[in-house]
Amino acid sequence: MAHISPDQDVVTLINVFTVDPENQETLARVLIEATETTMSGCSGYVSANIHKSLDGTKVTNYAQWRSREHFEAMLSDPVARAHMTEAGELASGFEPQLYEVVFSDG
Amino acid sequence: MAHISPDQDVVTLINVFTVDPENQETLARVLIEATETTMSGCSGYVSANIHKSLDGTKVTNYAQWRSREHFEAMLSDPVARAHMTEAGELASGFEPQLYEVVFSDG
Repeated sequence: MAHISPDQDVVTLINVFTVDPENQETLARVLIEATETTMSGCSGYVSANIHKSLDGTKVTNYAQWRSREHFEAMLSDPVARAHMTEAGELASGFEPQLYEVVFSDG
Repeated sequence: MAHISPDQDVVTLINVFTVDPENQETLARVLIEATETTMSGCSGYVSANIHKSLDGTKVTNYAQWRSREHFEAMLSDPVARAHMTEAGELASGFEPQLYEVVFSDG
């Protein structure tokens, strides 16, 4: 289980993939497999959380890394890049952004 | 602190606002104030988590509601709608989506 809080020492990746609804489940499975086989073993990995939109058109990964530098190091890993290429090819577009949490209530 | 897990009985709103970097901080404050004064009192509210992108161009709300019906009831509340209009006017665009969590690791 992942936790969201401004007090956590993480950088947050929110990556929104736009997808044909017939590919939504496949894309979610590719991202889950990439997390389990590769990302979770990368230095600085904290969490990954895969979301499917109720309307079928999006898959969003809410992931936490120890730092921007750890995230960028993962991006240069050839195996991780192969997974991301596979995911990208299932989507019509994707928009990754790195964030800081400034407020959490609940 | 909010928790992410497929086992939680929630629907997740991920709303990505695109913003001029000079308005990022103001938009984040509007969303925090809306949460504290209005959303958090709505029936079915679970959590809200406001994120600022490191590049200045996005503000994203990761929010949890007990059900889609609770979220939609909030949308029809005039005070909540006024807050969302104020937030929308600070952004060049926003893309709200409702999700289910299908995988969480970390």
